Amino acid sequence: MQVWNDYQNSHRERFLNELLELLRIPSVSARSEHKDDMIKCAGAVQQRLIEAGADKAEVYATDGHPVVYGEKIFDPSAPTVLVYGHYDVQPADPLELWKSGPFEPVIRDGKIFARGSCDDKGQFYMHVKALETLVKTNTLSTNIKFIIEGEEEIGSPNLAKFVESHTDLLKADVILISDTAMISMDNPSVDIGVRGLSYIEVEVTGPNRDLHSGVYGGAVANPITILARMIASCHDENNHITIPGFYDDVLEISAEERKLMAKAPYNEKAYEEDLGVKALWGEKGYTTNERTGIRPTLELNGIWGGYTGEGAKTVLPAKAHAKISARLVPNQSSKIITAKLLKYFKDIAPAGVTVKAEEHHGGEPYNTPIDSPGYKAAAKAIETTFGKAPIPVRGGGSIPICALFEKALGVKIVFMGFGLDSDNLHSPNEKFDLFNYYKGIETIPYFHKFLPEFL
Amino acid sequence: MQVWNDYQNSHRERFLNELLELLRIPSVSARSEHKDDMIKCAGAVQQRLIEAGADKAEVYATDGHPVVYGEKIFDPSAPTVLVYGHYDVQPADPLELWKSGPFEPVIRDGKIFARGSCDDKGQFYMHVKALETLVKTNTLSTNIKFIIEGEEEIGSPNLAKFVESHTDLLKADVILISDTAMISMDNPSVDIGVRGLSYIEVEVTGPNRDLHSGVYGGAVANPITILARMIASCHDENNHITIPGFYDDVLEISAEERKLMAKAPYNEKAYEEDLGVKALWGEKGYTTNERTGIRPTLELNGIWGGYTGEGAKTVLPAKAHAKISARLVPNQSSKIITAKLLKYFKDIAPAGVTVKAEEHHGGEPYNTPIDSPGYKAAAKAIETTFGKAPIPVRGGGSIPICALFEKALGVKIVFMGFGLDSDNLHSPNEKFDLFNYYKGIETIPYFHKFLPEFL
Repeated sequence: MQVWNDYQNSHRERFLNELLELLRIPSVSARSEHKDDMIKCAGAVQQRLIEAGADKAEVYATDGHPVVYGEKIFDPSAPTVLVYGHYDVQPADPLELWKSGPFEPVIRDGKIFARGSCDDKGQFYMHVKALETLVKTNTLSTNIKFIIEGEEEIGSPNLAKFVESHTDLLKADVILISDTAMISMDNPSVDIGVRGLSYIEVEVTGPNRDLHSGVYGGAVANPITILARMIASCHDENNHITIPGFYDDVLEISAEERKLMAKAPYNEKAYEEDLGVKALWGEKGYTTNERTGIRPTLELNGIWGGYTGEGAKTVLPAKAHAKISARLVPNQSSKIITAKLLKYFKDIAPAGVTVKAEEHHGGEPYNTPIDSPGYKAAAKAIETTFGKAPIPVRGGGSIPICALFEKALGVKIVFMGFGLDSDNLHSPNEKFDLFNYYKGIETIPYFHKFLPEFL
Repeated sequence: MQVWNDYQNSHRERFLNELLELLRIPSVSARSEHKDDMIKCAGAVQQRLIEAGADKAEVYATDGHPVVYGEKIFDPSAPTVLVYGHYDVQPADPLELWKSGPFEPVIRDGKIFARGSCDDKGQFYMHVKALETLVKTNTLSTNIKFIIEGEEEIGSPNLAKFVESHTDLLKADVILISDTAMISMDNPSVDIGVRGLSYIEVEVTGPNRDLHSGVYGGAVANPITILARMIASCHDENNHITIPGFYDDVLEISAEERKLMAKAPYNEKAYEEDLGVKALWGEKGYTTNERTGIRPTLELNGIWGGYTGEGAKTVLPAKAHAKISARLVPNQSSKIITAKLLKYFKDIAPAGVTVKAEEHHGGEPYNTPIDSPGYKAAAKAIETTFGKAPIPVRGGGSIPICALFEKALGVKIVFMGFGLDSDNLHSPNEKFDLFNYYKGIETIPYFHKFLPEFL
């Protein structure tokens, strides 16, 4: 629509500067030292919603980081869209690998580099600017509600309670989330699923103190060696996961659906080159897209123990630790898999060590149909601005709250993500292409325009 | 000798305070930020040697940390003892496990707690105070030379060159080292061997950047998982080391000698209880004393990769690292074993990762006979002050320079250590019992007194 284009073009620079300002707040939910930054960031989101034209926006305290709720009620009888996003970000380390400060956003080669630029500040903020576009051009056709939380990256531990006790406030016809990626800007796609998550931490304790590795070496179980053996035992030679019962509830995908999936554009050579690896690695019998889409996985996210500084120290350490997470697919249960993981690491501990295994957080897998009104509106909106119908794909990531959202509010979720897999989410040098940011702001108003016709 | 006792008793407090002052210098050789502390510590040692009565003491620069040489030539025709020790210490971390600052020595329960209290400042300083005793009571019967280096804990990379180019300066009839432990003060012992060392660091690189573990998890080799598999593959189910050719040159000990070794006091229950473990662990077919004395070992000294901070981060890291060291026995060669270790880790790398494996430092194993003049003098000295002949035992630790010393100077080494295995060498809360410190100072003059009669 020309009126949207005109409005957005004349405010391009401000749309960007507002996002950069948000990116300067180090809202790392996992780190307690950022508690005040979380409060500051929630306040900024509230403020921006009001400025964009929301009737109201409020910050709700939780047992953890606050939730921001905002709404623009255009006509109580019109369809309502609930936009979900998160203002919290992943920790930025390893800091030394960033080319510019994670919380000092810079534009290089047409990309915004900053922690949270894509995941998810840049993506949820497209919705704030879409709201502004619709309000300021007087073209609203839906009511729009926002729930922007501060704990997505730590598993949304307090959002369920908020959602369950605010179902009236959050009542909507569809939930719209931009926190996923497209295959590419030439191959627009819409995610139809996110994987679930089980995340645990394991601590292996050997002797009651660090020991001289010469005096005691060879006589005492070394917790690093034992932990390495435990980790090595989690996959077999085909890279199947060996945790007892891990695959019990996995929904096997039909040959037909796998055939359909295989049609999505994928270039193994380009994928390898982008990652700088000579060979891929994964579960035997499945393609790369299947490994990241329809199959559960078990990944080591961190490991540490003993001396990790400069030079050499001949120590046999008392402890070794690992952070381990599984991605889950329908119909696996995060609770059940977490319990199996914890039990496994405790069960296989040899007599010379003790093992403490604890849960970090989890989330259920979630799939959404491609015949829902929301999906249809998203597909039509993307076709309008990209000139191509989007390809439905299964994403590998997780958005912990999805399954609960659907259960508590009784509506389907649509994932309309504008990121790219190469955006370095959770990694140093996270980026979001300016093209994608503006393309999202351009596309979202069409979703609201088209939704009523499909409902 | 009464004259020694009288002298030492009237200077007890000063003997302690001087050591404490030395312990306050954080002379960590592995860390480049302590370069100035190393120079300061070398200067302090030089100064103390002069004060104790050395004719001269000098600090020699090397390509690394300086070497201190000092001497008291009592009579050029008398036997000469070369005392070797080291003023450098291991890194102090993990700092949070220390009950008091590693470089703020305190006396608790009759023990000096500080990094280096036993290894080796406390032990080489006994020799400085023994020199003072002999000089001030005019009872010298040998010439005494000191070589106190600053790089023992990093494998003495520059000492060989110094020794080889100063063989005349260092000429002696016996080399005396206090850098080992006794079984207990009730069971005095003398080490007759130290193990050699090969120390390497391995870096496994997977993708060219940290990845989102959901988006890429299951499709790319995780360097932590691969490193864990590599480590797990280093021992078989009997805890034999599987590195090809690792045992090729191991000198098998005769059944007779093993029988003799088995007579050394050892209480498995007490050993386990001291370490706080429910079971020991080690190579099948060997006792604990054999595992730490006559068998080579492979220990993990450190491991790190991915996210190691508070909470959870769902990252598939680009890199994982490990520090790994082997203890060697006669007739293994540090050079050959290091090459085998490096090759092994490179050879077993699967296609999805690249492996960089580099040497830290090494040292050859060293054994010394029990019929040498030096051993006899040490045994008689210990019998005199402990009331019991010492038991010859094989130590598990390493003193990298030993083999080279014997080769370059053509004389045998005597290990007259006064530490205990429980002194927390290389660990938090390193300590040295005051009793042991003073017992060492009491015993060492007898070594000098008895040596001439055995030469």
